[in-house]
Amino acid sequence: MEAFSDGVFAIAITLLILEISIPETAFEDLWSGIAHQWPSYLAYVTSFLTIGGIWAAHHGIFRRLAYANQRLMLLNLLLLMAVAFLPFPTKVMAEAIHDEGAARTSVIFYGGTLLVISLLLSALWGSVALDRHVLRPDVSDDEVRAIALATTPSIGLYAVMIVLAVFAPRVAIFGYLVVAIIALFRMRGDSIPARAPTST
Amino acid sequence: MEAFSDGVFAIAITLLILEISIPETAFEDLWSGIAHQWPSYLAYVTSFLTIGGIWAAHHGIFRRLAYANQRLMLLNLLLLMAVAFLPFPTKVMAEAIHDEGAARTSVIFYGGTLLVISLLLSALWGSVALDRHVLRPDVSDDEVRAIALATTPSIGLYAVMIVLAVFAPRVAIFGYLVVAIIALFRMRGDSIPARAPTST
Amino acid sequence: MEAFSDGVFAIAITLLILEISIPETAFEDLWSGIAHQWPSYLAYVTSFLTIGGIWAAHHGIFRRLAYANQRLMLLNLLLLMAVAFLPFPTKVMAEAIHDEGAARTSVIFYGGTLLVISLLLSALWGSVALDRHVLRPDVSDDEVRAIALATTPSIGLYAVMIVLAVFAPRVAIFGYLVVAIIALFRMRGDSIPARAPTST
Amino acid sequence: MEAFSDGVFAIAITLLILEISIPETAFEDLWSGIAHQWPSYLAYVTSFLTIGGIWAAHHGIFRRLAYANQRLMLLNLLLLMAVAFLPFPTKVMAEAIHDEGAARTSVIFYGGTLLVISLLLSALWGSVALDRHVLRPDVSDDEVRAIALATTPSIGLYAVMIVLAVFAPRVAIFGYLVVAIIALFRMRGDSIPARAPTST
Repeated sequence: MEAFSDGVFAIAITLLILEISIPETAFEDLWSGIAHQWPSYLAYVTSFLTIGGIWAAHHGIFRRLAYANQRLMLLNLLLLMAVAFLPFPTKVMAEAIHDEGAARTSVIFYGGTLLVISLLLSALWGSVALDRHVLRPDVSDDEVRAIALATTPSIGLYAVMIVLAVFAPRVAIFGYLVVAIIALFRMRGDSIPARAPTST
Repeated sequence: MEAFSDGVFAIAITLLILEISIPETAFEDLWSGIAHQWPSYLAYVTSFLTIGGIWAAHHGIFRRLAYANQRLMLLNLLLLMAVAFLPFPTKVMAEAIHDEGAARTSVIFYGGTLLVISLLLSALWGSVALDRHVLRPDVSDDEVRAIALATTPSIGLYAVMIVLAVFAPRVAIFGYLVVAIIALFRMRGDSIPARAPTST
Repeated sequence: MEAFSDGVFAIAITLLILEISIPETAFEDLWSGIAHQWPSYLAYVTSFLTIGGIWAAHHGIFRRLAYANQRLMLLNLLLLMAVAFLPFPTKVMAEAIHDEGAARTSVIFYGGTLLVISLLLSALWGSVALDRHVLRPDVSDDEVRAIALATTPSIGLYAVMIVLAVFAPRVAIFGYLVVAIIALFRMRGDSIPARAPTST
Repeated sequence: MEAFSDGVFAIAITLLILEISIPETAFEDLWSGIAHQWPSYLAYVTSFLTIGGIWAAHHGIFRRLAYANQRLMLLNLLLLMAVAFLPFPTKVMAEAIHDEGAARTSVIFYGGTLLVISLLLSALWGSVALDRHVLRPDVSDDEVRAIALATTPSIGLYAVMIVLAVFAPRVAIFGYLVVAIIALFRMRGDSIPARAPTST
């Protein structure tokens, strides 16, 4: 299940670039044509770092599991479905940002997708916490609580950003990026094995 | 073989989103433009959950195998070919749903692909049941029968849905979604190891 | 190295479907529009089964290796480059088949790519045979010779098909499909482990 | 972390082909139409071999790691973000090469991306060298120095090529290809295990 999920994360994160292109009409002044695509780069970086953080959190959950039950499998599939959906609002936001009216809608739509992803990630860990026997026996109560605390704040931050998007959509985009960076820095990386644990 | 198959499932499931886009003309009223794509979302969710269920069933078969013979390899390749084909009828159905005449055809074409996938999955397990020495020695007769029973009903349900599609194509689409959800819930998830069994 | 190669094979095989689509103008008579795409389906099936066979042969080589030297790594990268290139001539052939003049060229171009892939696969195994210490100690001389014999005939068959394509391009397409099927049936599947050999 | 990174490399390398296509207007003289796409093939080969070399270097780093800390995880994510970005400048360069004015810009933009990738790869290894306890205990000081020396020269070569691109953009493209080939040949392949080290 983890290999399959990793594949979906890796593909969703790499497909993001396919949506960016420069019209041939911009070739006369290509530097300005490249620069003009800044909303695409911003959306690319934000979605890339967000999925990267979700992947790391997902990995942190799965390497603590001994078994997966049906509820976990279904929640995991819903999470993957939301993550694989993200390239779509990413593309819409990158295209709509130059349009006064559409910008607000696209930024709220994008933030709503991020909020759903965060909720599903929390639900995944909540389901584990409710059904402790799926965890490996060496996982402590403190760890369970620490992970729950680490996944919760993004939900609140995304809700705030969506409200902000109603008034200042362009500011909210940078907000999403900041939330992704905060989530990455909050992660404790020290305990991540670099490879599959074959030597243990 | 399983890693390769998992890769194909993960890619086919993630490519589905690439086909969805919003024309720039819809940017004037973007909420309505986003809502107008509902057939694409419905097709996306249906194909995603269907492939997710097929993957889980496939995984359930492969982790009971000790070896793969040539017949299994060929059937598996045919199954992957049908699964990797699914994004095409998915896209056709999502585009044709607003068109009275084309809707019926596209829904039957989509259902036909799902039926072929189900038949190949059953054939894969049937081939295993005929040639028991490819199974791991700890797999019981009861398990073999239970898996055969779990994969069979979808065939009948898809046949019914295709007939329904002739008369009420839009109802049949929801039918495909329901079949996918039933297949996911019928699965016994408790015995799915969360990771590759390196610690055993 | 094998996981990375498997990824490239799985992605190249799954991307093939992205190139197939039905123009909206064909929605008036969608069955005929779907049927009209037969060159795309034929090209899809041929490329899918060809890559499937190449993957199986590649897997047969790599699970007999103990180490990879630099020459192997470079040959493997060239092989992957040719395999990842295949979706391009596949698309060109599917589009050009209805055009009298372009059909011949596109079928020769496609066959040339298949010939290059076969040559690289043979070179890969030839390089292993020259440098036997990269093999696992339990691989016998007979096995080395058997694999060399199994990969050679495709080269001759593809050369014949390319000559045939000059005179009868549409016949040659079916020829490519037959070569792919022959290659799949020539494979001895019995010894393929279904999963990564973690329990040994 | 390595499996996820391998996935991103494999996908980025395989997506490159999606950007190449032949306009239907070129079907009248298809050989010349195929030949006319030479900038796309050159860009494809260059990016493929470059990512192949980066993957091999990345693999060389990760199989020497025992653990990954947060800094490594973040640098790795930035490296993957730059690698997954490469298909975009590859496409721009392939399209702009026939345009006198845009060619120079596109070649510098492409080279700049390669330079950033090289810098991030060096930073990744530099971070490991600063924090030796993340390495497996059997990695010697000589190895650490040898890898640092192996990743450094590409940075200088790319800087030179970018300056060259200002004066002779088409020569610089071949320069990028040469740098990629040099990097591949500089690699010591003998110690690369062909498969995941499950038997040790």
